[in-house]
Amino acid sequence: MKYLHTAVRVTDLVQALDFYCGQMGMIEVRRFKGHQRPCDIIFLAMPGDDQAQIEVVYYHDAADREKYGNFSHVAYQVENIYDTCQELMDKGLSLNLPPRDGFMAFVKSPDGISFELLQKGGPLPPEEPWASMPDQGTW
Amino acid sequence: MKYLHTAVRVTDLVQALDFYCGQMGMIEVRRFKGHQRPCDIIFLAMPGDDQAQIEVVYYHDAADREKYGNFSHVAYQVENIYDTCQELMDKGLSLNLPPRDGFMAFVKSPDGISFELLQKGGPLPPEEPWASMPDQGTW
Repeated sequence: MKYLHTAVRVTDLVQALDFYCGQMGMIEVRRFKGHQRPCDIIFLAMPGDDQAQIEVVYYHDAADREKYGNFSHVAYQVENIYDTCQELMDKGLSLNLPPRDGFMAFVKSPDGISFELLQKGGPLPPEEPWASMPDQGTW
Repeated sequence: MKYLHTAVRVTDLVQALDFYCGQMGMIEVRRFKGHQRPCDIIFLAMPGDDQAQIEVVYYHDAADREKYGNFSHVAYQVENIYDTCQELMDKGLSLNLPPRDGFMAFVKSPDGISFELLQKGGPLPPEEPWASMPDQGTW
């Protein structure tokens, strides 16, 4: 596994980007919209250190912004998300989000820190038993 | 600045290391004791990705373990901690922990995410005005 990013939730996107970019000196790497809970997702990195990123999530709905804490998760890239998830299950770990889409899974530490696993190079074709595996709690 | 680690607090060290090392496959990079609030501090990394680490903090005092949340901070290495702190102050940021020891400083995002700044290569000689600069809040 390879470290990708640490994700944080922000309550004021302008103020947050003023801190991360204006003050801390990070640069915007990419930005897109989230749809499940409508949001802006912005990846930031320090100049010259673009492999280790901060993911900033800004929910459009005030209720979503109030619902969650400021820390979201830590993300790692994996070579084969199905193999990794199988290994983790074999070691007794639950998949809070199974890799139904062949791309993304979530597990949690005993203290509730969420770890996101992301397939290197983009989604694999959906595959059973993963495609129909239900969530286990939140992530 | 260069990303170093994301720090988490754990309530059961054996259980935590079983997750991070036994299940997730991380390896212990270094370990030492903290003294201000007695604790074990363990740095972990994925094999082959030892530059991006997870810092695990286990407080010995149950009251300390109950006092704080599971997420602690994100850390970056800086070329010159005094220059960086001066730049951040010039941009209007408060230093929650000034670099009194020439090595470590903390700032916070508007949403309360703590960022640790660490001097590359170890402590610089203590220097004013930093050496006598008081804390500003918590970090």
